[in-house]
Amino acid sequence: MTGGIGSSGPESESGLGFRSPRIQRLRRLVSRREERRESGLVVVEGATLIQEALAAGWVCVEEFTSSGATPVGVVEPTWVAPGVLDRVASTETPRPNIAIFALPTPIDIGRVSTALVVDRMADPGNLGTAMRSAEAAGFDAVVVTSGTVDDLSPKVVRASAGARFHVPVIESSLQQLRETGFHLVGTSSHRGTDHLELDWSSPARLGIVIGNEAQGLDDSAPVDGWVSIRHAGRSESLNAAMASTIVCFAAARGRGLL
Amino acid sequence: MTGGIGSSGPESESGLGFRSPRIQRLRRLVSRREERRESGLVVVEGATLIQEALAAGWVCVEEFTSSGATPVGVVEPTWVAPGVLDRVASTETPRPNIAIFALPTPIDIGRVSTALVVDRMADPGNLGTAMRSAEAAGFDAVVVTSGTVDDLSPKVVRASAGARFHVPVIESSLQQLRETGFHLVGTSSHRGTDHLELDWSSPARLGIVIGNEAQGLDDSAPVDGWVSIRHAGRSESLNAAMASTIVCFAAARGRGLL
Repeated sequence: MTGGIGSSGPESESGLGFRSPRIQRLRRLVSRREERRESGLVVVEGATLIQEALAAGWVCVEEFTSSGATPVGVVEPTWVAPGVLDRVASTETPRPNIAIFALPTPIDIGRVSTALVVDRMADPGNLGTAMRSAEAAGFDAVVVTSGTVDDLSPKVVRASAGARFHVPVIESSLQQLRETGFHLVGTSSHRGTDHLELDWSSPARLGIVIGNEAQGLDDSAPVDGWVSIRHAGRSESLNAAMASTIVCFAAARGRGLL
Repeated sequence: MTGGIGSSGPESESGLGFRSPRIQRLRRLVSRREERRESGLVVVEGATLIQEALAAGWVCVEEFTSSGATPVGVVEPTWVAPGVLDRVASTETPRPNIAIFALPTPIDIGRVSTALVVDRMADPGNLGTAMRSAEAAGFDAVVVTSGTVDDLSPKVVRASAGARFHVPVIESSLQQLRETGFHLVGTSSHRGTDHLELDWSSPARLGIVIGNEAQGLDDSAPVDGWVSIRHAGRSESLNAAMASTIVCFAAARGRGLL
């Protein structure tokens, strides 16, 4: 999958240089969704997140370590010349460890009974937080619809604080989920039953749908019911992170997951 | 309070230059807590947040607008030479509007019956989110203890999405609050009553205490009781933002605020 160092093009004595084909591929994996999809590989930046991915059972394919830094050490590190990872990293304070992981085999939707369904969410921070809520509430999976920001982008992985590795993510559509027997409950700022009054335990297969942060979930979305959260303050609606936390935890309690 | 343009030192035809004393004071107000405390002034960056501050009734003292941009227009704008505000702003994508507001008169703690008490929280993003939770839950105030990150820092104001302007913030200590008759409930990852089982309605004056994000609230903290949140997933505790959202909303429902 990766060539030996000797075949990797330009390199200095202290490790791979920026123009090395392997560094260029790493760079594409950081920045391009299609590259991640086609290769089945994902980049994880920083020792903490690398360890989270390992703890979740993900398989590390290659680890890049800046010359002079300490490798996380799960595979033989590929040494990189000083400053090179700074030009590759998605963060403004780049870390000296970057690893490539293989995407795990997707789980079968048939095994999922409680899912958070994220519909056309645009902000990586919000998607990461939604994943974190779903994981902490004990949900089986997060479902993302097409039009949602890439769940494997470095920003999402970072915002999820590693939850991305621990909760399976499935790509699907609201229509497909209903055809698979899911009872979908859409979150809304203005309609539906209050989250504390809904009977969360009855649907055998439950999908809580949270929409785009700017427009919310469309009133015509193909869902089976609606839930809302009463709140005070000046805003018309809660932000997506708060809403997903509150609804996931209410549903988890109602379903005996916590 | 502010000198006329003519007395402000170096300036170009298109507005104040970087070395102008007024720009230098603005810079200090952005970066230095003591400057904000001593002057009673706070900097608000970007048209959206400026409008939030105005909507909350805060008084704008001066508005700086980059030459060529549109002022928010509440006071006669002070024009600034191109590029200068970029060097002053706390953000990486600086906005062409920056305003100075006067801090409102602090509210009397005697008027507060439900408060979120933030004890030695270090991260501006967490404090901003905690304020947002308190506001959306209809709390009367946020109390910050000494050792908590400055509630007027630009990062906190931004993370609060303007909630900082809408919810009064009071500086106090746990001991002082108890002496004023507050019943303090500490949030904990490992002890206390579950948040859904606590009777939130009984204390006339309730303070929910959330601790430092790394260490949590100390077991020896002078509180009257403890509350915890059951959760799943790999983490030992929920992050501070999720915890404050869940507990504030549970308490608000129990107290009939929502």
